[in-house]
Amino acid sequence: MLDTVDPAITMGKKEFERLREEKELKLGELQRQAHECGLPILLVFEGWNGAGKGVQINSLLQCLDPRGFKVHPISRPNCEEINRPFLWRFWTKLPPKGRIAIYDRSWYYQTTMDRVEERITREQAELAYHDIQSFERQLVDDGCLILKFFLHISAKEQKKRLRKVENDPEQRWRVTSEDWRAHELYARYWDAFEEMFRQTDTAFAPWHVVEAEDKRYSRIKIMDSVIAAVSRRLEEMKRNGKRADAVEQPYVEAVPFTTSILREADLSRSCDKKEYERKLPALQERLRDLQYEAFRQGVPLIIVFEGWDAAGKGGTIKRLTNSLDPRGYYVVPVGSPTDEERQYHYLWRFWRHMPADGIVAIFDRSWYGRVLVERVEGYAKQAEWRRAYREINEMEEHLANDRTILLKFWLHIDADEQLKRFKAREADPNKQWKITAEDWRNREKRPLYEQAIQEMFFRTSTRLAPWTVVESNCKYFARIKTLETVIQALEKRLK
Amino acid sequence: MLDTVDPAITMGKKEFERLREEKELKLGELQRQAHECGLPILLVFEGWNGAGKGVQINSLLQCLDPRGFKVHPISRPNCEEINRPFLWRFWTKLPPKGRIAIYDRSWYYQTTMDRVEERITREQAELAYHDIQSFERQLVDDGCLILKFFLHISAKEQKKRLRKVENDPEQRWRVTSEDWRAHELYARYWDAFEEMFRQTDTAFAPWHVVEAEDKRYSRIKIMDSVIAAVSRRLEEMKRNGKRADAVEQPYVEAVPFTTSILREADLSRSCDKKEYERKLPALQERLRDLQYEAFRQGVPLIIVFEGWDAAGKGGTIKRLTNSLDPRGYYVVPVGSPTDEERQYHYLWRFWRHMPADGIVAIFDRSWYGRVLVERVEGYAKQAEWRRAYREINEMEEHLANDRTILLKFWLHIDADEQLKRFKAREADPNKQWKITAEDWRNREKRPLYEQAIQEMFFRTSTRLAPWTVVESNCKYFARIKTLETVIQALEKRLK
Repeated sequence: MLDTVDPAITMGKKEFERLREEKELKLGELQRQAHECGLPILLVFEGWNGAGKGVQINSLLQCLDPRGFKVHPISRPNCEEINRPFLWRFWTKLPPKGRIAIYDRSWYYQTTMDRVEERITREQAELAYHDIQSFERQLVDDGCLILKFFLHISAKEQKKRLRKVENDPEQRWRVTSEDWRAHELYARYWDAFEEMFRQTDTAFAPWHVVEAEDKRYSRIKIMDSVIAAVSRRLEEMKRNGKRADAVEQPYVEAVPFTTSILREADLSRSCDKKEYERKLPALQERLRDLQYEAFRQGVPLIIVFEGWDAAGKGGTIKRLTNSLDPRGYYVVPVGSPTDEERQYHYLWRFWRHMPADGIVAIFDRSWYGRVLVERVEGYAKQAEWRRAYREINEMEEHLANDRTILLKFWLHIDADEQLKRFKAREADPNKQWKITAEDWRNREKRPLYEQAIQEMFFRTSTRLAPWTVVESNCKYFARIKTLETVIQALEKRLK
Repeated sequence: MLDTVDPAITMGKKEFERLREEKELKLGELQRQAHECGLPILLVFEGWNGAGKGVQINSLLQCLDPRGFKVHPISRPNCEEINRPFLWRFWTKLPPKGRIAIYDRSWYYQTTMDRVEERITREQAELAYHDIQSFERQLVDDGCLILKFFLHISAKEQKKRLRKVENDPEQRWRVTSEDWRAHELYARYWDAFEEMFRQTDTAFAPWHVVEAEDKRYSRIKIMDSVIAAVSRRLEEMKRNGKRADAVEQPYVEAVPFTTSILREADLSRSCDKKEYERKLPALQERLRDLQYEAFRQGVPLIIVFEGWDAAGKGGTIKRLTNSLDPRGYYVVPVGSPTDEERQYHYLWRFWRHMPADGIVAIFDRSWYGRVLVERVEGYAKQAEWRRAYREINEMEEHLANDRTILLKFWLHIDADEQLKRFKAREADPNKQWKITAEDWRNREKRPLYEQAIQEMFFRTSTRLAPWTVVESNCKYFARIKTLETVIQALEKRLK
């Protein structure tokens, strides 16, 4: 791709001055409109060392309201970031609705550098680019606008610039031996960048290569690109009345989605108290040992609990955590999103809680809410929850690529058992707090939930992150099965 | 203090078993009640190496719902934490309303260790303990419950325990040479702990020394302490009907609070366009150089902007940031708190945005909202905004102790100039977005705001963090003065 671009194009000073002011005003106006419409904008700046990313970002910012953007300089991951999947640091640096995030280098930095330094194979790079593609698509699908700029200069120009800075006594400190080394590796960088383009130049987030030897030309080109993309998007949003937030009717399948998985669950399975009390302590002790082992090996573990109301999630989580070292696990109770969380892609609020290496995170309800309650109650539009299956699989794959062990449990009880438990809770003054009107309402929608659950199993049970249905009419059985499943999975992976 | 405590007290197994179950049930019940009442609870565990903090925390957790607590193991600060004032990591680890945070070591760790290792003087330790006291008092005033446990064992017992673990081949890896060194320094630790008690054993957050050689005795004692404190607090809350969130009438002083500072501001001061255009670029360039210097020296800079509506905050911030390196500054626009932020002390949402070493954070409105809009509009109760002056001073002092440069600007215009600008905005289609009905309403309350502003100046203009009133009827003058003030402050500190 790069060989089709002449980085040396120039623009005369007169023309530049003629164009500049009008474009700057326009950009300021578009920023305000984007803010009003709640459009999140991501501006990515990549390119050669010395191509002037800093200068270009600075110029662009001149015409923007500094209260509406944030610049993220990206270099090597810090101590928090290095212990998590590589996209974590970018998920947590997304712009909320109506704001602009500017990345001085970005999620491309690490992979391209790793390729230049030959720390990873082509296949590993492909995996990373695949994850990046998914990341960008998810954001675009959610309404983000992504512009990716690549600032291009020739090897000759790069050398000239390094020399120039070196000859300035005030600036000299800015040139390091690494810069010269990068210059010597120009050809290798070229190959790495070409590979990056091939893998990530997509319709939803295309690369904009900017001829960057002449600062005037590149400045106007960048402004033009931002203006065009933002204007187009704002027009689209107005045309579609996206801000109306029209509520769709909850979706009901004409032909109910069925799988065999719920039907096959044998809810008569049980475990008597004596056996339970004999088995539990040994399992808990074993689990604690495995927790230490996972900690030593730096393997993160995520355990997701979903299930019917009153299926016993709380009690199971308690037995699971009872013997764990509390310094190494935490439970994330998931309710409705806060107003802050609503400013981002729906997966953002889970990324906030992803465990570092060696840590156990237990989700009491999870991202599956999107395809369960949000689907059934109509909180998510059909297009949104339909694409969520893929988004979830992609996220889980990304976690798995980072060695995370991910286990998902569905705590299953039948309608009769649920009724019995609801009534028992209402009768017990110590347990009344556990039962609300909402539980009764959800219960009435059981057929709709059953469809959603089965479709969820079908679309998101993967080899990397399988679902386990836990027959929970007998609580003792459910707890033992859950612990055994976790133990088996850990034993398999930690050996 | 410690010499009055016999760490070797024991409890028989029978008595323990008799007490345990009842207390565990009670704790579970109290956790639920605290959750319902929105009571945040902080449990701090400090003590000798090997005193069994982990074991005790674990026991306590057995009876709690894991969805309602989070355990924070505290050791050396990580790379994010080391670059910020030492309380930052604890501000960002507070429990939200209704949750429990458990600290396995805490904000006391660093200072006591520094004392043992003689890295800091007694005076420096006093400064740190002073900041810790303020921190705890602020939380307690805001409704948090803090319990601080110190697990006490003798030197002999410590040695015995280290030996025992070492003799177990499975556990041996847990004992390090550091543990033995700490044992040798038992006497020095003793002195450091005594100093800690003297400085931080307060009525609002007293220390509970737990005799920890016998696990049964200490377990019951810890449970008893938590039960007593939480029960008492819940009763108080019920008695005071704290959850009612009764709205107070906005407060009006009988005798208006006046200072000379606003009166003395000479709003006729101005700067003509020519002079402005001559001066501005040089100031901006100078500021950029100073930004690099602050970065090199690792000094954080916080600039706070407050001022009348339409006083020109946005424009001033823009000129201030125009030439700054965008990788080293960010602007924090402050509006009403999000629902997430409302779950914490009102300073929490600012702590989230405190800059790392070498970084510039610009607050467009700030924590002073508490004593301005929240006071005038009655969003904060009188007791709340009245204690905020002290809380703010304490926070700013803590920042200053960490070498932060903090500058606060009040952009001042008179009522006539404001009216002129409001009308001009309404007439200009490009600026109509800047003016809302709320601006007109605020304008009517100018006398109330004037009182609040003057009291704010009086109570929060400190040597470490002075207020600068910027005469802003002439925008050019205001911008030049602001930049000059920032430059002078930086020059003074960075020399």
